[in-house]
Amino acid sequence: MSIVVVGSVFYDTIETPHGRAERQLGGSATHFALAASFFAPVRMVAAVGDDFGADALAVHRARGVDLEGVQRRAGTTGRWTGRYHEDMNVRDTLDLDLGVFADFQPELPPSYRTAEYLFLGNIDPTLQENVLEQLARPAVVAADTMNHWIDNARPALEKLLRRVQILLINDEEARLLSGEHNLVRAARRILGMGPSSVLIKRGEYGVIHFSGDSVFAVPAFPLEDVFDPTGAGDAFAGGFLGSLARAGALGERNVRQAIVYGSVMGSFIVEDFGFERLSRLEAEDVERRYRQFLALTEVA
Amino acid sequence: MSIVVVGSVFYDTIETPHGRAERQLGGSATHFALAASFFAPVRMVAAVGDDFGADALAVHRARGVDLEGVQRRAGTTGRWTGRYHEDMNVRDTLDLDLGVFADFQPELPPSYRTAEYLFLGNIDPTLQENVLEQLARPAVVAADTMNHWIDNARPALEKLLRRVQILLINDEEARLLSGEHNLVRAARRILGMGPSSVLIKRGEYGVIHFSGDSVFAVPAFPLEDVFDPTGAGDAFAGGFLGSLARAGALGERNVRQAIVYGSVMGSFIVEDFGFERLSRLEAEDVERRYRQFLALTEVA
Repeated sequence: MSIVVVGSVFYDTIETPHGRAERQLGGSATHFALAASFFAPVRMVAAVGDDFGADALAVHRARGVDLEGVQRRAGTTGRWTGRYHEDMNVRDTLDLDLGVFADFQPELPPSYRTAEYLFLGNIDPTLQENVLEQLARPAVVAADTMNHWIDNARPALEKLLRRVQILLINDEEARLLSGEHNLVRAARRILGMGPSSVLIKRGEYGVIHFSGDSVFAVPAFPLEDVFDPTGAGDAFAGGFLGSLARAGALGERNVRQAIVYGSVMGSFIVEDFGFERLSRLEAEDVERRYRQFLALTEVA
Repeated sequence: MSIVVVGSVFYDTIETPHGRAERQLGGSATHFALAASFFAPVRMVAAVGDDFGADALAVHRARGVDLEGVQRRAGTTGRWTGRYHEDMNVRDTLDLDLGVFADFQPELPPSYRTAEYLFLGNIDPTLQENVLEQLARPAVVAADTMNHWIDNARPALEKLLRRVQILLINDEEARLLSGEHNLVRAARRILGMGPSSVLIKRGEYGVIHFSGDSVFAVPAFPLEDVFDPTGAGDAFAGGFLGSLARAGALGERNVRQAIVYGSVMGSFIVEDFGFERLSRLEAEDVERRYRQFLALTEVA
């Protein structure tokens, strides 16, 4: 089963307590696609500027990611500068320049339109729906969103949510979207908005998944060195949806295993700046940490 | 196997976003003993004032907790007044009056001295060691502590830690004690201070356990209504050590199951003020939630 992902491709400048990296390739589509490529064929949709390096996505290409949907346009690639606190759950955006992303109009190559899995990265919900419209008959639609869209584009977001099966969202966003502080109540209210499945991301505390009849919670993989948290949520989503696409069906067991694979990919990406760690990763590293993750959480 | 617990017995006045309760019986020994009594015989050591209700510990007595070590002394029982924020991981102490607890000198009845399990609730580490000295040959010694003792009684605490197998501590305290922000590094450093096992409590995010060769993490049980978090850590400790005492040995499987039982008892106590919920609890409620907890975390 193949996955279409639409999202951002940005040059990030990142400061963490461990150091600083400039012009690091990032963005939701970038991180998602690379993480998902360990599990299933991925087709990427995004916009980059004429300053974009010809080889900037060479790692993706080498891993078989289809880049036909990455539009090169006149203007500059989006740029984000952020600084993480010692508590790396907290970050400040120091600078943001959307570049060609500001008037991005996603257009899917014909070969993309029959993909079965769709990931709508964190962009304007109107664009997310626009991409959804271009797919013939996606079997599974998953979406991410953020505070900005909840505050400023709620009607479009609510319209989209009625067509999304799986919503990935962090705890603060879940509270904002639902108006409920308690996460169990927040999830229940979001399930009433359309999705049959809500995945609440809690950073270093892991993930909790709610669907009609089940709750599943996993901690994050405990790491001695969290180097750069950027992209953890998108790498999680890539591992999660990639694993689901590889399994080919949405049963509870598949969903739980996919959440663990998502956690595994999230745990790798934070070990270095940008997607450096994923670019050196082998399939056997993924399986080894998957087994370690099971050992971390197995009661008996 | 029987458990001796030493700790505080206080009258608490508690404000939460859900309401206010006055003169609610609390304190680490109170909550620990009641939670542990679901698993093993418990002998309690504490001090109360001459204002202490004759029947205040009737629920404990009915559950078979040995109260011979609860000294009644001239003066008033300790009192604590606290207020929780909407984010119930955050609380303010509004008032604290130690009462007879201020010059508490624990003295164990002879019948207590052969107990195999010892829980040193969060009191002055010098008193904790004093209690430890009074036991003949405890098989398992577990202790809790807090910021106040780490800041103001570090030498006594470090001396105690060399004689403790299991340290229970929250994440902020683990950082303060170790000087490491990252919890994996913090735990490793604490393991170097004496304990063979460190349990880091993360409130609504669950618990992570480190020992020589293993890491085990569980989320907290997701609740729709967290009414009053007071005592959650002590009820966790009671369920944990109670379950270990019932099992009678410290193998990895027993420790993991005990952590789940601790999480179960912590999840019950927060459902009402004080120990109201535990006083209405049946053994079958505990086993039912234990099974729900396994279902919450089982990957496949």
